[in-house]
Amino acid sequence: MIQALEKIVGRDGVLATPEDLAVYSYDGTFAEGRPQAVVLPRTTGQTADIVRLAARERIPLVARGMGSGLAAGSIPATGGGIVVCFTRMNRILEIDTVNAAARVEAGVVTADLQAAVERKGLFYPPDPSSIRHATVGGNIACNAGGPRCLKYGVTGNYVLGLTVVLADGRVLQTGGKPIKDVTGYNLTALFTSSEGTLGLVTEALLRLVARPRYAMTALAEYDSLEDASRSVNAILSEGIVPATLELMDQTAIACIEEAMHLGLAADVEASLIIETDGSDQQAVLGEIEAAGRICREQGARRVKVAETEEERAGLWRARRSISPSLARLAPNKLGEDITVPRSAIPGIVRKLRAISAAYGLPVVIFGHAGDGNLHPNILFDGRDPGQREKVERMVGEIFGAALAVGGTLSGEHGVGVLKRPYFEAALGPVSVAVQRSIKRALDPLNILNPGKMFAD
Amino acid sequence: MIQALEKIVGRDGVLATPEDLAVYSYDGTFAEGRPQAVVLPRTTGQTADIVRLAARERIPLVARGMGSGLAAGSIPATGGGIVVCFTRMNRILEIDTVNAAARVEAGVVTADLQAAVERKGLFYPPDPSSIRHATVGGNIACNAGGPRCLKYGVTGNYVLGLTVVLADGRVLQTGGKPIKDVTGYNLTALFTSSEGTLGLVTEALLRLVARPRYAMTALAEYDSLEDASRSVNAILSEGIVPATLELMDQTAIACIEEAMHLGLAADVEASLIIETDGSDQQAVLGEIEAAGRICREQGARRVKVAETEEERAGLWRARRSISPSLARLAPNKLGEDITVPRSAIPGIVRKLRAISAAYGLPVVIFGHAGDGNLHPNILFDGRDPGQREKVERMVGEIFGAALAVGGTLSGEHGVGVLKRPYFEAALGPVSVAVQRSIKRALDPLNILNPGKMFAD
Repeated sequence: MIQALEKIVGRDGVLATPEDLAVYSYDGTFAEGRPQAVVLPRTTGQTADIVRLAARERIPLVARGMGSGLAAGSIPATGGGIVVCFTRMNRILEIDTVNAAARVEAGVVTADLQAAVERKGLFYPPDPSSIRHATVGGNIACNAGGPRCLKYGVTGNYVLGLTVVLADGRVLQTGGKPIKDVTGYNLTALFTSSEGTLGLVTEALLRLVARPRYAMTALAEYDSLEDASRSVNAILSEGIVPATLELMDQTAIACIEEAMHLGLAADVEASLIIETDGSDQQAVLGEIEAAGRICREQGARRVKVAETEEERAGLWRARRSISPSLARLAPNKLGEDITVPRSAIPGIVRKLRAISAAYGLPVVIFGHAGDGNLHPNILFDGRDPGQREKVERMVGEIFGAALAVGGTLSGEHGVGVLKRPYFEAALGPVSVAVQRSIKRALDPLNILNPGKMFAD
Repeated sequence: MIQALEKIVGRDGVLATPEDLAVYSYDGTFAEGRPQAVVLPRTTGQTADIVRLAARERIPLVARGMGSGLAAGSIPATGGGIVVCFTRMNRILEIDTVNAAARVEAGVVTADLQAAVERKGLFYPPDPSSIRHATVGGNIACNAGGPRCLKYGVTGNYVLGLTVVLADGRVLQTGGKPIKDVTGYNLTALFTSSEGTLGLVTEALLRLVARPRYAMTALAEYDSLEDASRSVNAILSEGIVPATLELMDQTAIACIEEAMHLGLAADVEASLIIETDGSDQQAVLGEIEAAGRICREQGARRVKVAETEEERAGLWRARRSISPSLARLAPNKLGEDITVPRSAIPGIVRKLRAISAAYGLPVVIFGHAGDGNLHPNILFDGRDPGQREKVERMVGEIFGAALAVGGTLSGEHGVGVLKRPYFEAALGPVSVAVQRSIKRALDPLNILNPGKMFAD
């Protein structure tokens, strides 16, 4: 098999030493799955040859970008198989400024794409936290989001078309540069968020927008999480759509303060980071002021609008430091990704606190409150089997709580291996049966990322 | 069969007289297809019973709302079969103001939904021209658009979840109130725009936004279509996203003027209707002024911003009168729905004029220029077989021209029967094969709207 792969991609395109395989056995989680080989194609044609080889030999294929996934979706679940890593397909093939579209290979790092289009006055909004170490292909596989997705929408809202290698090696083109297209089934949307189980995405045509010229950021601090949560709905109800509306609970704020000494008040129960942006400076200013007024009306103790670019950067540094700063508190963390209807946020946060108290492990809560997408992070010590077992039960309770209020398992990370046990509880047997029938129709040999999503 | 249907929906829910069947043999096109019976369910349960009956007896089912479709998608294509008409399922089940969502039955008229949510300060943006005589279910089946979709997106961007009766009578629920959801395949998007070929949509959960409080409208008149087209790109490139950017060519303008005597200059080659909207009056005004300035910079002869609500209504009356006013010029019209990359608009308009000149039949051009979605309307006399044959060849050339510049067959009407012959040319054999395999997986007996989309 190694020789057959080398024949397709050249000797330097195949990795199979124990050391190399170890590197590709992990993603952004604690899960592990070792492949038999890693192959790094440089073209769609090479990818199609790899898939035909795998189909002939019935070898599982796992698509992978930078391996930053948070659901164990890009490591082999079934043992063995070939990891198809797209990091060498990282070219930006075209930036079409007139039609505001970019054609890229799947392995381009999202931050690199953003920088390239911004140099041309354009803007690619999706901004997952992993933006500097995640690929567009991975973002598409999970339909990644990010703070800015409140105003701008998620990755899927920017995918105009895809080049996909199907399970038998045929190459499918979907979509095109026209913004509107209702000719046939929406295959672009079907392959987006399919986590590499229906085909291997090798290229994407992405929609761009004009780069917003102005942005204003504010921090609102609350004595009550309910007030913070109500502010989110009140802002949106007034027709203000901030670029971001990020929530942090007391534990998250304490974490940041301990790590960064920004002078955040330790006794606030919740904070919102609000950012407005656009092409009209007065409108952007007007919106941040209106949002601040609404926050105060809803009970914010203090609202501080960043007055300099430095203050603004400081607020975002604080937000981005949550995840890394958690490492100071415990050896391990498990970051979940539930979404709930916005109105359910106060209730779900109370429930998360109750779960934390019942098991005696801290749960730090932050996330994209405007979208109802929260990231409860359980802090624990993975060396302690008792704590690991507790974490497993806590995750089950967290998902149960989200589903009970009409929420779901994942807003931007995907199902992968980790949420597989909860998949049918979240979607119901009919939905799972329909999805399985689509999977069987497009991948009858089950060679594309087997063992993901479906509990098979 | 009639008796079996009556047992499910009651005697008043089945129509089978020749007069009734004649009514349901047409949609918004010149095509005709007569059903054996029309059934009007009142619930999802009745719909499921109808589908089970049809599956047992292998009877084709054609879903229908108000029958305003423009691709012959809601009339039987294969002769006979049952039309399942959802006009009695027209209840608005819930308007959730906190989460900005509405749950409706498939048969609710889109304008009724809009009025109901606007009374609560919310907004459902999709605005197909047929809004007063089209249903939400039909809009979902075709992923309908409209002028406002430039800023707000098409119907599919507002579908949070669906209740779908599958081909074997099982009931599928997709999605939910959370805005972000990446748990499993995007079935909501797959069923949206599937034109009743994969399942019967009986209910929808729709996303709403805050109602914009201010709107400004301007008319820009040009001596050159190229200048009008360039203005569209220049406006969007500056980061201004108007709610609408509608283009009308000289023939369309002449048509309106002849019908309505609004004082539109007969010698302008193209006009744009631009509307900005939002919650901040100054920003809305600033945007329309900036758009007007850009239009002048790009060569507009005159830009007139409507200063009163009456002037504004007049501009929209003009735009909406295009289609009806065409009836004064010729007994028949065929309205197409091509989309092209925005940059290709001037070229495609020149090509459409050349086709018109070559065949000696007028082609009126108007549409949603910001989206690249144009509606070339061929005017002809259907009593003349020679003209009918010409129209057929012209349609083929129009689609060929759109595909040649990276465009496609339909931006908001769907494929139905009328565009079926061009389906594979537009999408290629691999895409069609993938779509067929999904169709077979979900409707193995081919009872759901057979003879649509696929040339089978």
